Amino acid sequence: MANFERNMEKMLSIVSDLLRRKQYAQLRGLLLPLEPPDVAQMFEQLPEQDIPLLFRLLPKELAAEVFVELETEYQQQLIRSFSNAELKEVLDELYLDDAVDIVEEMPANVVKRILAHSDPEMRKSINEILKYPEDSAGSIMTTEYIDLKRDMTVADCFKRIRRNAADVETVNVCYVLDRDRKLKGYVTIRDLFLADYEDVVDEIMNPNIIFATTLEDQETVAQKFRRYGFIAMPVVDTEERLVGIITADDVFDVMEEEVTEDIAKMAAIVPNDKPYLRTGVFETWASRIPWLLLLMISATFTGMIITGFESSLAAYAALTAYIPMLTGTGGNSGSQSSVSVIRGVSLGEIQFADLPRVVWKESRVSLLCGLTLAVANFVKMMLVDRMLFHNSAITVPIALVVCATLVGTVFSAKIIGCALPMLAKKLGFDPAVMASPFITTIVDALSLLIYFGFAALILPAG
Amino acid sequence: MANFERNMEKMLSIVSDLLRRKQYAQLRGLLLPLEPPDVAQMFEQLPEQDIPLLFRLLPKELAAEVFVELETEYQQQLIRSFSNAELKEVLDELYLDDAVDIVEEMPANVVKRILAHSDPEMRKSINEILKYPEDSAGSIMTTEYIDLKRDMTVADCFKRIRRNAADVETVNVCYVLDRDRKLKGYVTIRDLFLADYEDVVDEIMNPNIIFATTLEDQETVAQKFRRYGFIAMPVVDTEERLVGIITADDVFDVMEEEVTEDIAKMAAIVPNDKPYLRTGVFETWASRIPWLLLLMISATFTGMIITGFESSLAAYAALTAYIPMLTGTGGNSGSQSSVSVIRGVSLGEIQFADLPRVVWKESRVSLLCGLTLAVANFVKMMLVDRMLFHNSAITVPIALVVCATLVGTVFSAKIIGCALPMLAKKLGFDPAVMASPFITTIVDALSLLIYFGFAALILPAG
Repeated sequence: MANFERNMEKMLSIVSDLLRRKQYAQLRGLLLPLEPPDVAQMFEQLPEQDIPLLFRLLPKELAAEVFVELETEYQQQLIRSFSNAELKEVLDELYLDDAVDIVEEMPANVVKRILAHSDPEMRKSINEILKYPEDSAGSIMTTEYIDLKRDMTVADCFKRIRRNAADVETVNVCYVLDRDRKLKGYVTIRDLFLADYEDVVDEIMNPNIIFATTLEDQETVAQKFRRYGFIAMPVVDTEERLVGIITADDVFDVMEEEVTEDIAKMAAIVPNDKPYLRTGVFETWASRIPWLLLLMISATFTGMIITGFESSLAAYAALTAYIPMLTGTGGNSGSQSSVSVIRGVSLGEIQFADLPRVVWKESRVSLLCGLTLAVANFVKMMLVDRMLFHNSAITVPIALVVCATLVGTVFSAKIIGCALPMLAKKLGFDPAVMASPFITTIVDALSLLIYFGFAALILPAG
Repeated sequence: MANFERNMEKMLSIVSDLLRRKQYAQLRGLLLPLEPPDVAQMFEQLPEQDIPLLFRLLPKELAAEVFVELETEYQQQLIRSFSNAELKEVLDELYLDDAVDIVEEMPANVVKRILAHSDPEMRKSINEILKYPEDSAGSIMTTEYIDLKRDMTVADCFKRIRRNAADVETVNVCYVLDRDRKLKGYVTIRDLFLADYEDVVDEIMNPNIIFATTLEDQETVAQKFRRYGFIAMPVVDTEERLVGIITADDVFDVMEEEVTEDIAKMAAIVPNDKPYLRTGVFETWASRIPWLLLLMISATFTGMIITGFESSLAAYAALTAYIPMLTGTGGNSGSQSSVSVIRGVSLGEIQFADLPRVVWKESRVSLLCGLTLAVANFVKMMLVDRMLFHNSAITVPIALVVCATLVGTVFSAKIIGCALPMLAKKLGFDPAVMASPFITTIVDALSLLIYFGFAALILPAG
């Protein structure tokens, strides 16, 4: 099973063949041992009309798990093909947090049908969770967990776990509540195994709990999982009452989502949570064009700067040839420092209070980088551009102007690159949006100003 | 405890104060309820000479856990301050995979001392794991897990778990082996709770196992955890014998590491696994300068192209002003598509076989984007540059050249941006290295060629 993706092609053709020959028992036997995400992926590559039939071949627990893994559009199709009894059967098997995910994606008429066929308790819980804002801890938690009381013995705990194991998201961590459902501690299943049957929960529980609050951002929840190596974390309301738990599998999804979002923003793309190949051409266009337009328009400044210095460019035509190199190096330097800082901020390694340290560090790094580049460039201009290509327009003063600009550009690019994301975060903006492309535009304009400034200073007026 | 980082300042001053006043019992009471990563972070902000003393105040289990969380340099200092007995005590408490992580980072003389004081079994296991290549599944696994036999009853299993719970990394999943230690299935602790005490493992185990092999890349292991929502995964050797397991907390670290590495590469930084603020100025310089130099030198081509077309630039000076806008837009368009594709590849959503689909999609998106930008730019050049700023050099033919170049540049940038990373991956190179900066250099040169091509075509010879 380990190399499932590589066997996909083969599996698909066998399944198609069995379907054609109506060998349903064999089909069922083939699908049974597969993991739900693999079955879902296979369904999505088969003709639409075959999916309901295949779905009905699955035992109901696997069917529900496969259903959760399907893309929204396929879930919708299936729901449409379900009888009310079938819909109820699938819903009964779902974990609550998965049901909520599905309800969040569905159009209103389908949601109505889902809620109408959920049992009353699940309906109440779904409505409860739907109240929490998107991307909050409350919106990704499940309310199915094992709660214990302080005066229970370990033997009582085992009995309670046995009774509830089928319905809860995890038995690996159990939560200890007082009469008001306030969270008092937690016990891992390992703690229970290591204790004696007569031990009382109060004595063996861990009273120091790292928890999330319902409105907390899912990204900080993911940071806590990473920091503490958790497999589950409790979610409490404002009065410290336990309302749900978040498990590691949910956090894998959050981490993936948040990173994809950050990377998109760094590349000047409006984030979109669909996979690349499932996003339509117009949707992709819509997520890319806003930043392209904005950045194109803001490049008006660089154009104006060049127009303003047209006369020096006319006098020293060789200067024009170095413009793309200078703005390019500035952009690369800036994005190096901005991306490092943005990543540090999102991992929680860099706080706003570190700003002076960061700026001080980047000043030294940028001077080192700028000087190295200036020296290399001076040598290159003299040996390659002047001697090898016999370009007599490349004089020592011209080379000095280019090299001085390199130092100035790299320095300002790195300082802007590190400071802007941190300031943005402090002001409540998203640091990732402040990354490469936006910084590039500022750095482009700045490097031209520095360039023409040094030209006016070093070169005799043309 | 939830908002530990915000309370850090306050905690630090209380700890310093208690240290000064030698209130060790109180200090111990203060540290005891904290999570190991928080204690480690605090230690790292205190004067070096205080750390061994504080460390000795901790009960040995917490001490070992804090030790694991410390940065390598602090671990080294502590090991140097340890007596042999103390070293042995810490080592005895460590989980095997953590011990391996530490050994991997330490200089040879410290490693020798560590191995000399580990018990023989641990020494053997450490040496075993150290044989696996860096970033392989074998190098991050632990060999401490619970194994069961097929003919054991559930009651036997519970007994076995009770006996071993203290020494294994997790009790949440147990692995079923045959006589040759070949992996035959797994049983979750939940399965055991749902079964009857007399049930036999063979009947309740899940025989369909997703596993990793020892030499498999840790990134594909992380992908499987994400795909299947695992909390633990078995690692087998070439003969399908179980050699270890990987748990979710290890995978959080891998995911973080891999993403940071990818992001660094996209920003033309040589990856480095130290946190930003702990990396020295020279180290930072060294990880950034290679790409800056390479990209600066490769910008020679853009310079040569401009020099080659000096005469058309002299005849139509207005063309120069649009160079940064055109190369900038090209760079942004290219990095949008390259970053989308790279992320899709690293999430396993895009395979090499999808190349035609990707190129076809990008062609349509890029034409849409290019046309939108061209229209907006034409309006802007006519209304703003020509009418508002009275720049009579901006004629309709000049605007047409710029707009045609926009369409051509955006198109070629997006095609190169999506194809290059996929081809790189196919050829065994790292797709992330092929991202934004490298593509930008190619796109810069290309957009100038397109620009001067359209100029020669549309404008009367100067």
